Amino acid sequence: MDSPARVSMGDAWSWQVHPDMESERRQPSFDVERLTNILDGGAENTALRRKVESVIHSDPVFSLKDNYFMSQNERYEAGVKKKFHLHMIAQRLGWSEHSREFRYAFRALTGDLALGLHHIFLKSLQSLGSEEQIAKWAPLCNEFRIIATYAQTELGHGTYLQGLETEATYDADTQEFVMHSPTLTATKWWPGDLGRSATHALVLAQLICSGARQGMHAFIVPIRSLQDHTLLPGVTAGDIGPKMDFEYTDNGFLQLDHVRIPRENMLSRFAQVLPDGTYIKLGTAQSNYLSMVVVRVSLLLDEINPLLEKACIIAIRYSVIRRQSRLRPSDPEAKVLDYQTQQHKLFPQLATAYAFHFMGTSLQEFFEESYSAILDRDFSLLPELHALSSGLKAMVSEFCTQGAELCRRACGGHGYSKLSGLPSLVSRVTASCTYEGENTVLYLQVARFLVKSYLQAQASPGSTSKTSLPQSVAYLTAPDLAKCPARRAADFLHPELYTRAWAHVAVRLIKDSAHHLQTRLQSGADEHEAWNQTTVIHLQAAKAHCYYITVKGFAEALQKLDHEPAIQQALQRLCDLFALHGILSTAGSLRKDAISLTDAFDFTDQCLNSALGCYDGNVYERLFYWAQKSPTNTQGNPAYQKYLRPLLQSWRSKL
Amino acid sequence: MDSPARVSMGDAWSWQVHPDMESERRQPSFDVERLTNILDGGAENTALRRKVESVIHSDPVFSLKDNYFMSQNERYEAGVKKKFHLHMIAQRLGWSEHSREFRYAFRALTGDLALGLHHIFLKSLQSLGSEEQIAKWAPLCNEFRIIATYAQTELGHGTYLQGLETEATYDADTQEFVMHSPTLTATKWWPGDLGRSATHALVLAQLICSGARQGMHAFIVPIRSLQDHTLLPGVTAGDIGPKMDFEYTDNGFLQLDHVRIPRENMLSRFAQVLPDGTYIKLGTAQSNYLSMVVVRVSLLLDEINPLLEKACIIAIRYSVIRRQSRLRPSDPEAKVLDYQTQQHKLFPQLATAYAFHFMGTSLQEFFEESYSAILDRDFSLLPELHALSSGLKAMVSEFCTQGAELCRRACGGHGYSKLSGLPSLVSRVTASCTYEGENTVLYLQVARFLVKSYLQAQASPGSTSKTSLPQSVAYLTAPDLAKCPARRAADFLHPELYTRAWAHVAVRLIKDSAHHLQTRLQSGADEHEAWNQTTVIHLQAAKAHCYYITVKGFAEALQKLDHEPAIQQALQRLCDLFALHGILSTAGSLRKDAISLTDAFDFTDQCLNSALGCYDGNVYERLFYWAQKSPTNTQGNPAYQKYLRPLLQSWRSKL
Repeated sequence: MDSPARVSMGDAWSWQVHPDMESERRQPSFDVERLTNILDGGAENTALRRKVESVIHSDPVFSLKDNYFMSQNERYEAGVKKKFHLHMIAQRLGWSEHSREFRYAFRALTGDLALGLHHIFLKSLQSLGSEEQIAKWAPLCNEFRIIATYAQTELGHGTYLQGLETEATYDADTQEFVMHSPTLTATKWWPGDLGRSATHALVLAQLICSGARQGMHAFIVPIRSLQDHTLLPGVTAGDIGPKMDFEYTDNGFLQLDHVRIPRENMLSRFAQVLPDGTYIKLGTAQSNYLSMVVVRVSLLLDEINPLLEKACIIAIRYSVIRRQSRLRPSDPEAKVLDYQTQQHKLFPQLATAYAFHFMGTSLQEFFEESYSAILDRDFSLLPELHALSSGLKAMVSEFCTQGAELCRRACGGHGYSKLSGLPSLVSRVTASCTYEGENTVLYLQVARFLVKSYLQAQASPGSTSKTSLPQSVAYLTAPDLAKCPARRAADFLHPELYTRAWAHVAVRLIKDSAHHLQTRLQSGADEHEAWNQTTVIHLQAAKAHCYYITVKGFAEALQKLDHEPAIQQALQRLCDLFALHGILSTAGSLRKDAISLTDAFDFTDQCLNSALGCYDGNVYERLFYWAQKSPTNTQGNPAYQKYLRPLLQSWRSKL
Repeated sequence: MDSPARVSMGDAWSWQVHPDMESERRQPSFDVERLTNILDGGAENTALRRKVESVIHSDPVFSLKDNYFMSQNERYEAGVKKKFHLHMIAQRLGWSEHSREFRYAFRALTGDLALGLHHIFLKSLQSLGSEEQIAKWAPLCNEFRIIATYAQTELGHGTYLQGLETEATYDADTQEFVMHSPTLTATKWWPGDLGRSATHALVLAQLICSGARQGMHAFIVPIRSLQDHTLLPGVTAGDIGPKMDFEYTDNGFLQLDHVRIPRENMLSRFAQVLPDGTYIKLGTAQSNYLSMVVVRVSLLLDEINPLLEKACIIAIRYSVIRRQSRLRPSDPEAKVLDYQTQQHKLFPQLATAYAFHFMGTSLQEFFEESYSAILDRDFSLLPELHALSSGLKAMVSEFCTQGAELCRRACGGHGYSKLSGLPSLVSRVTASCTYEGENTVLYLQVARFLVKSYLQAQASPGSTSKTSLPQSVAYLTAPDLAKCPARRAADFLHPELYTRAWAHVAVRLIKDSAHHLQTRLQSGADEHEAWNQTTVIHLQAAKAHCYYITVKGFAEALQKLDHEPAIQQALQRLCDLFALHGILSTAGSLRKDAISLTDAFDFTDQCLNSALGCYDGNVYERLFYWAQKSPTNTQGNPAYQKYLRPLLQSWRSKL
């Protein structure tokens, strides 16, 4: 039953699974390997992923072992080294940029690589560039002839892109754009790889053509010499300094002082500037936001949810090794996972990780459906894709952050040690609440979409509206649930019932928020004032809608698992728990499967890099031996020579 | 109105207050200086505090400026240096160990000092030691002839002290205790100053006398040579490695291999071992927990709540400088504090910080009342003091952690930069949820006290029980609120009404939790099983009780401010907000005072050490110039020479 490849090697004690861990896996209620296959989307994917993992883990360059002991400068250097090493391996083994192999390598490395924005640059180029531009720049990028980044946010401007100050003024005489940062707050701030690595930046700037402002567009700007890496004339750039995490990336700043670039460097799938300065719009006002949508969708499954999965693995594994207090005076100390309060902390997080996995998969499918149409300038699905990806990004990042921190704290004092692996998971996932769109702003964008859809449904009631409303909000036209059909507590365990209940909650809040808005308008507030005065309820409505979408998606995914009744049953409990967000009724039945459900995520020990969460359960040995390697133990103690010794010694002479 | 001493000096732009900040302070609705005096407990305290702050801030040794750029080893070395420097200054200026001056110096330094456990050792010695022991060890400690720590938690054991494994076996032949760590999990783990500094440890261990186990007692164990600082025979010790924060402290581990100490080294205020091995108990089973109670009480006002106060200051100040989006298309971008959602995030945190300030003050008074009685072995108030300090420590640490993180996230991307000061506040305050007693465990201890008090109230109803119940739970005997007396929403703004409402909620939950417990017992569960099956509701009851205590304390403190009507009114809004935990009705009226209410906390810029939260509001200038000093910008880029250059150059030769 145990998969030996999951066990990390090295120390003698790590060859043996802790008996408290072994007993958890003795009688699984389902086949863990088959659940892993389902999560991977097929047994062949599992096999391929493990093959990639073995390539990565057998290579000492990729070891994460010293990560917790390294300075920001050392992490960056290692991040660059790994990136190039991976590039070489990929060339040798024939992994292409968007292949599954690459995705699995990224997972095995837990993204601990520099030059990640290089990839975002490519995605943006493919979304916003013309075919000629893609043909020119993509190979340069793929072969690392240039190192590129995506420079959007500014020192004084984040999610509100209309507020960006950087200017791109077209000069018809020379057929160039003049790229300029007119103020301190216009300084580009935060882009990854910008601080010390990038040679080119995709700069988001306000286009000014023939004196007219045309809104935000994307421009390729060379910033560092390809010969000696010095900053090009007119360019000021550097690193933004210490952060909570992402130390392997040189997040940077950039000021442009009238830097000239050729006309061809404006990405022109959705807008063009002709040589004489005529501006031609080929897309909608939202087209240039497309690259953000693309990035958001890929983040959910590849970056954000895995952080919660790992936090659950570590906390639940540790909770069957850690013993504390006695349930009865005569008993030995109990596993902390046997305490109701510990279950109440951890199991809802596990349920959330599974819920987001299935939701992420179906969002990915919808994305693939709509993306190619949008590239061909059919924008009919863009509003829904935008609303879905915004809302779900906000929800997933919010819940994963909360959940990972809960898992961390559920490990008590040891969860505060970096060696547990949990602090870095938490400080990394919490960034996702802000990057690629601040969550409150994103939720409010969803809320606008919901109010609009609701008013549309009201305007044309009946069957016709159903077809005209986007699929994800079609439930706004369903008849009201006059009364809850549940008679007994147990009735709430029917997926159909709780899905309808969530629809009911969402509809009621959307209705309320539209109603509040109307009331303000009728009492004389203008549109913007009325909106700001009602945003707290809009926020609630958007959150309920996202919750409904997720519950519905989870329940539907489980219906398709009829051929795996044991797995279906175990996941059903997670779905119930996620939907009902309470544990009292289901705790007992989940307790037994806790380790199996975390094993199924199938993260290797190397990539968990946690003293608390390894497969074998040898928690205390690992914590103890890892600590010995800390620079605090290996680099001597200058404070003793300089301060402690003189003081302590001064007394001896007087005794 | 502006107090120039609050403004941090150095850069030209920092001499001028940002106009967006100035406008906030133009027409305060109350006198900020007088509110600061109230918070300090009198104008003379404010003056003294500022005097101490000017001593600290004018001394370059105490500068916090480079903190965000230093490694763990560098932070530790600086922490030791500062500690000794402070000690010298204190001697010169005549500040005694427990003086206000020392407290203010600690505040000005934001506790960024090594050897903090030295102080905890002293407090424990004074709580648990005999008069002779205090007379012997306290001077050694005060004069730094020894460096002492308090070693309680073990690798496998935390809050459940009965589970500690370290043994102290009395040997009557030599009149010594044999101190021993029988297993790996018995290794002492986490004590501050233990890793690289301490010469002596107060070791909490299971006393074994004449073959009988007598429970946990405290022993002074020499661990490092006073001559050359090497570990003494039988002692293994070192640093536990990287943590989320507290890098200036060498949290350590300790293994004892049959280390012998004299009989006199067992602290013996509440228990003694006679030379022949006879054990004499002078206190209760809880006596040896007294030092934890002492520490918990002092933490609330001196360590935990100030972290939330600072987070509020930084986030609210930044929110009047940061502008984002437009409330109306024709307006300039709005201050983010003008958005309802931002107010909804920040103002409840500000209300919480004020609520905890007043609650902490009254807890301190109750502590001073009861502590001297307990030292004289009158234990009648110990159960209530234990319950109050446990519950309020859990509540304050939980709310402050949540609040500080909320403040951090409310600053968007810049809140993720260490330069904002927020990451270190959050990672520091979150430790308080675990240290000195894990919160869930503490809440459940309160719950036991509540159930016991409730059953006592039921057993003897009427007026007699009122006098016998501890003061903080006397409300359990008040007549039931048959029906909420509020008629309109505005009625909820009466402190009497919402205090009674909270009492009602707490009583109902305590009743419920006792009822659930009884039901389980009647259906055949044994006592311990029944308790574990009902802990989630016990937790809720304990939390409601703590909330009630805090609301009541805040409301009572405000009644005493009749002579300051403007301040009373401003604080009343905070009290209402804290009690009602909603913002919709009070947001508008609080918005105007937001900056004044944070200014009143009167933290200097040096001690905030935040690029976002300084008094002058020059957010972007500070962020930009601080980043330039980061080692990522000053230490060259080896990754370019090693990796980037060879690759980029390899293409040139082929072009």
